[in-house]
Amino acid sequence: MIRMRYLVTAAIAGVLLAGCSGGTNDQGAPPLLDPMATGTLSEHGGATRAGDNRAQLIADSIRNSGARNVILLIGDGMGDSEITVARNYARGAGGAFAALDAFPLTGQYTHYSLTKDGKPSYVTDSAASGSAWATGTKTYNGAISVDIAGHDQKTLLQLAKEAGKATGDISTAEVQDATPAVQVAHVASRRCYGPEETSAKCPTNALEHGGAGSITEQLLTTRADLVFGGGAKTFQQVAKAGDHQGKTLEVQAKERGFHIVRTADELAATTAASQDAPLLGLFADGNMPTRWTGPVASRGGYLEPAVECTDNAARSAAVPTLATMIKKSIELLGHNENGFFLQVEGASIDKQDHAANPCGQIGETVDLDEAAQVALDFARQNKDTLVIVTADHAHSSQVVESMTAQDVQAAADEAKVSWPIARDAIYPGLTRVLRGKDGAPLTVSYGTSDNLDVLDQGHTGSQLRIAGYGPGAANVVGLSDQTDLFFTIVRALGLSER
Amino acid sequence: MIRMRYLVTAAIAGVLLAGCSGGTNDQGAPPLLDPMATGTLSEHGGATRAGDNRAQLIADSIRNSGARNVILLIGDGMGDSEITVARNYARGAGGAFAALDAFPLTGQYTHYSLTKDGKPSYVTDSAASGSAWATGTKTYNGAISVDIAGHDQKTLLQLAKEAGKATGDISTAEVQDATPAVQVAHVASRRCYGPEETSAKCPTNALEHGGAGSITEQLLTTRADLVFGGGAKTFQQVAKAGDHQGKTLEVQAKERGFHIVRTADELAATTAASQDAPLLGLFADGNMPTRWTGPVASRGGYLEPAVECTDNAARSAAVPTLATMIKKSIELLGHNENGFFLQVEGASIDKQDHAANPCGQIGETVDLDEAAQVALDFARQNKDTLVIVTADHAHSSQVVESMTAQDVQAAADEAKVSWPIARDAIYPGLTRVLRGKDGAPLTVSYGTSDNLDVLDQGHTGSQLRIAGYGPGAANVVGLSDQTDLFFTIVRALGLSER
Repeated sequence: MIRMRYLVTAAIAGVLLAGCSGGTNDQGAPPLLDPMATGTLSEHGGATRAGDNRAQLIADSIRNSGARNVILLIGDGMGDSEITVARNYARGAGGAFAALDAFPLTGQYTHYSLTKDGKPSYVTDSAASGSAWATGTKTYNGAISVDIAGHDQKTLLQLAKEAGKATGDISTAEVQDATPAVQVAHVASRRCYGPEETSAKCPTNALEHGGAGSITEQLLTTRADLVFGGGAKTFQQVAKAGDHQGKTLEVQAKERGFHIVRTADELAATTAASQDAPLLGLFADGNMPTRWTGPVASRGGYLEPAVECTDNAARSAAVPTLATMIKKSIELLGHNENGFFLQVEGASIDKQDHAANPCGQIGETVDLDEAAQVALDFARQNKDTLVIVTADHAHSSQVVESMTAQDVQAAADEAKVSWPIARDAIYPGLTRVLRGKDGAPLTVSYGTSDNLDVLDQGHTGSQLRIAGYGPGAANVVGLSDQTDLFFTIVRALGLSER
Repeated sequence: MIRMRYLVTAAIAGVLLAGCSGGTNDQGAPPLLDPMATGTLSEHGGATRAGDNRAQLIADSIRNSGARNVILLIGDGMGDSEITVARNYARGAGGAFAALDAFPLTGQYTHYSLTKDGKPSYVTDSAASGSAWATGTKTYNGAISVDIAGHDQKTLLQLAKEAGKATGDISTAEVQDATPAVQVAHVASRRCYGPEETSAKCPTNALEHGGAGSITEQLLTTRADLVFGGGAKTFQQVAKAGDHQGKTLEVQAKERGFHIVRTADELAATTAASQDAPLLGLFADGNMPTRWTGPVASRGGYLEPAVECTDNAARSAAVPTLATMIKKSIELLGHNENGFFLQVEGASIDKQDHAANPCGQIGETVDLDEAAQVALDFARQNKDTLVIVTADHAHSSQVVESMTAQDVQAAADEAKVSWPIARDAIYPGLTRVLRGKDGAPLTVSYGTSDNLDVLDQGHTGSQLRIAGYGPGAANVVGLSDQTDLFFTIVRALGLSER
């Protein structure tokens, strides 16, 4: 086994040393992290992941030179618990994600939001959270890149665009959803997708009241070179004021020079995205379909037979994967001589966690890992690229001990209660047992609601993993705050801070 | 606010640069991390924690020279969620622990255990977990430094002792509890505290069957220079075989040259701990009392008024704190010219989490931070000291969104159910609202049991934070496994691996 550990070291060292020695194409380099497929976990040293001296690897990968490109990957709701659930199922407890687990520099960050009077709110939503890294300013839940007083805060994407960089904003959610929205819009409420909602929920932002308009209208004004995701439905809303009054947002987009694609084939056929003709990929009316599906967790589900996840039939070949979207984005944005800023969101880790669907959230994590592989591959060949992967907030799913009916009986006997009383007391939320790569029972618990009709599973406030590779990545190590990420990227790219 | 960030940078830089420039005493150095007490969180950049360029700080702190001393701090059950709960309450969401949050190098590690047939068990107990870092070998839940086949695996403390180093093993639990036990004993079951339990539960280990004896008996044989904690009760058990048959373990300890202290005053008066006269501090019959106390979480507790934590009257001046114990340990072990290995456990973060007592677990985390401050202070003055702080497994407590009776009503209305049905569906485990440093409601949920008579709150499987400072600390960055920690320490100290 000892030899195995040395081999892994050599693989990591090879890449990281290559990663610091110049700009040559090293397509043939070994993967960043060997997933230890041949180790025997019970042997002395058989479960280790690191090599002999990570210090040298880190020293090699720290460079003070500026970044030209930034790829920021967000797993919505992808707390450490969600990463672990997905790794256990898809790669095995001793296995590793090829990209998510391979980042050499990692740390933790805090992500609380604020009330409108500036007090901490210990559980953030995706809007306040995304606004924090997009602008460097903490704000209230629901806010899209405005501060607690409602003032617009310039975003990373806007600053990068001002510096002449190409920009992209992609998500598996609706393009108006909080995480993609925070880079392209400034509204009082995340719900203000189109002119209809904006009149009611964000009156000061409404175009008819002299505001900058809904999230979708501001998305068109901010004019990133490319925006991909779902959310086609809102483009059927009609502008209430301005040059395009009375026309749908889709017509408006076309009149403003946007090129719209709807399918994976149309996306594949695209060869340009620029300020002359920005590319709008709208691949679903609402959110894009998930990769995997499986039974939702249930009351007492921890005693039901283990299940396996299955492919989601709704994700047809017409729907591009996140990896496909990021690959095309990098290809298109890479033409800009000033570099690019690209935000990439795997949105439905969160949405499936809300729905207590372990297979759903795991498949989305696997998808994000594949997207991260594309980003890391690009960064290894283009050393002036900073890649960051993190989440916006923690979530409810927990890996809990697997229990049998006999375990319940033992607990009932000891507590002198009936079997049903003991059964209901144990894991009182929703649970599901999976059987994945290891062939061992993996019990996932959602303990923040036991009835999804009353309340979805909720976000949680635990500090989160942040990981990086490339120039500036060392700034993620240790404890930071979500707002630090804004400054890390601003400095890596040499942008102005406001 | 911008200036504030630069000041913090300067403070960190000052220490880390000092930390790499030689061995001089820098007692007057500023703290490793400024807790940002004066920042306005809602300002642009007002919530950031890092300075301009952590890369330089890390580069400065990476040294390949060997460590002479290692201090390994374990927060039992101190997952990222437990750290966040404690920080939010005791320091504020935007605040920071003076030591726990100041470690410059951090990463994540996995901590699954194995079944006896070598399959992953996704939720470890403290025994398999501690055995993993103590020996570098994964094992089954309940095992104390034996592999899945029951074979003894040499521990860090034993290897350090063989290399002529001074050794110490301190905990706020019983000294026979899993985490302290994994460094000094090898038994089939963690329950085998004394000869009585060992006859029944670990027959092959029993002295009367030719084994090495119970945990307590092996603790005496391993003969660390000092062992501090609770667990005095087991020392009243009587040996069933061997040279000390028929005598209590306390008498045996004295006959074997151990010096026993029982109170903080007796500890303070001690001036030596060595192989001639090892020091045994037994400060409680069972586990040592916690720092803080407060109401246990309850069904529907999320709707009750917020509470504050109070000092635990049971922790009198006669009981040394963890910080006192580590300070005395460093003072005594520091005399050894070959350096020392010291394991320090804050045990009751876990125990109070099991009991759904947020104030209990928070107070213990604050205690561990104070102990970590002592360790960091020593390491800053003795640059050949590696300090690691991590946990053994994640736990159940989660920071959840605070809800009001009106929120429940809104959920009930939308779901068309009664208020009590909605109330019970939301946070179906045990909950408690605290009001700490920020003056804002902090709701903590324990969702793995709603009835502690049936089952305690349980461990969870999420990957954990590991943090380090000093020579070798860079090996904690990125994703590692709990077993990597064994090799990190072995290499830092230049020990043999078996």
